[in-house]
Amino acid sequence: MDNQPSEDPQERLVRQLIFVREIDRLKEIVRRNWLVDGSRRENDAEHSWHLAVLAMVFHEYAEEPGVDIAHVIKMLLIHDVIEIDAGDTYAYDASAQEDKEARELAAAERIFGLLPEDQAEEFRDLWDEFEECQTPEARFAASLDRLLPLMQNYDSGGFAWRENNVGSDQVRDRMKPVGEGSGVLGEVADWLINSAVERGYLRDGER
Amino acid sequence: MDNQPSEDPQERLVRQLIFVREIDRLKEIVRRNWLVDGSRRENDAEHSWHLAVLAMVFHEYAEEPGVDIAHVIKMLLIHDVIEIDAGDTYAYDASAQEDKEARELAAAERIFGLLPEDQAEEFRDLWDEFEECQTPEARFAASLDRLLPLMQNYDSGGFAWRENNVGSDQVRDRMKPVGEGSGVLGEVADWLINSAVERGYLRDGER
Repeated sequence: MDNQPSEDPQERLVRQLIFVREIDRLKEIVRRNWLVDGSRRENDAEHSWHLAVLAMVFHEYAEEPGVDIAHVIKMLLIHDVIEIDAGDTYAYDASAQEDKEARELAAAERIFGLLPEDQAEEFRDLWDEFEECQTPEARFAASLDRLLPLMQNYDSGGFAWRENNVGSDQVRDRMKPVGEGSGVLGEVADWLINSAVERGYLRDGER
Repeated sequence: MDNQPSEDPQERLVRQLIFVREIDRLKEIVRRNWLVDGSRRENDAEHSWHLAVLAMVFHEYAEEPGVDIAHVIKMLLIHDVIEIDAGDTYAYDASAQEDKEARELAAAERIFGLLPEDQAEEFRDLWDEFEECQTPEARFAASLDRLLPLMQNYDSGGFAWRENNVGSDQVRDRMKPVGEGSGVLGEVADWLINSAVERGYLRDGER
């Protein structure tokens, strides 16, 4: 991270402090899935933390050799920050997916734009890389971002799936990136889906 | 992160999956400070996420040159995991501080011990390094871990300080590590404390 301060140091620091305060709001963005104890739904900030630790734990399963895990972690830490403005778009809600991109682009402009210019660019590049999913690091990050909610839904007995009338075909489709980022974790995903259907957590077939 | 699988790959993966599920409980460990919007107290998982992003944003202010920011981030991501068993010990509660170390050591044994041996050691080393605070990376991590709640208490108008009858001397003492890890952030801490006293958010003097 090479920072090239381009402005008054005081102004730079103030912009950084404003950003740090603004992203506190990610703790208020609620996702569909539930905590393991079933007490409440998860928020984006704790989801991002959980994913970053997953990257540390599952590093050895990244499909492509030499994946820069620090880079994966940074991507995962900031990948949902845009949801402060854009909100959480449920993976299986087709109509909400339609204008998702426009909402998220505007959010990235505003939120990363709070930072000093060089850092705004650095964070935006990380987010773009995650969204475009074309690098080994982004593919591994995407793999984890898909796998974790599957594990959580499984652990809750499929509560969020039933709540939203999701079928196994949709879940299988949604989980394709898991195997693309990690063969081993792809097998974990397959096992979880099959077991979820067998146990009646997840309806077999289409929506 | 060199992993030397020492057991059956299947068993290794199962241990990793169990750890990943276990740490979901960090989302249930509630801290004393409040979200910026005042809606509820913060939990340890979202706190850890916020700190890791702070490390990215404030990297340039680390006191010692060449601080390995990826290492700082990893320490911050796991530094509170032991609170799943040990609970959050309030910084200004002297009696709870007494048996804090024993509770946290037992927690580290159990929770990191869920992982395969090599990873258990890696995570435990990160936590020990954070606790001992003897490396440039640990000093910078500690600096952020102290500064962030100060910022949050300031933003909430000192609610948690008044709730616990905390005085400015205690806060100044508690904030010493901020300046040790980062001169610039130490000045931010001083400014926030002085301003909090002036504005009546924080009582001047001792407890």
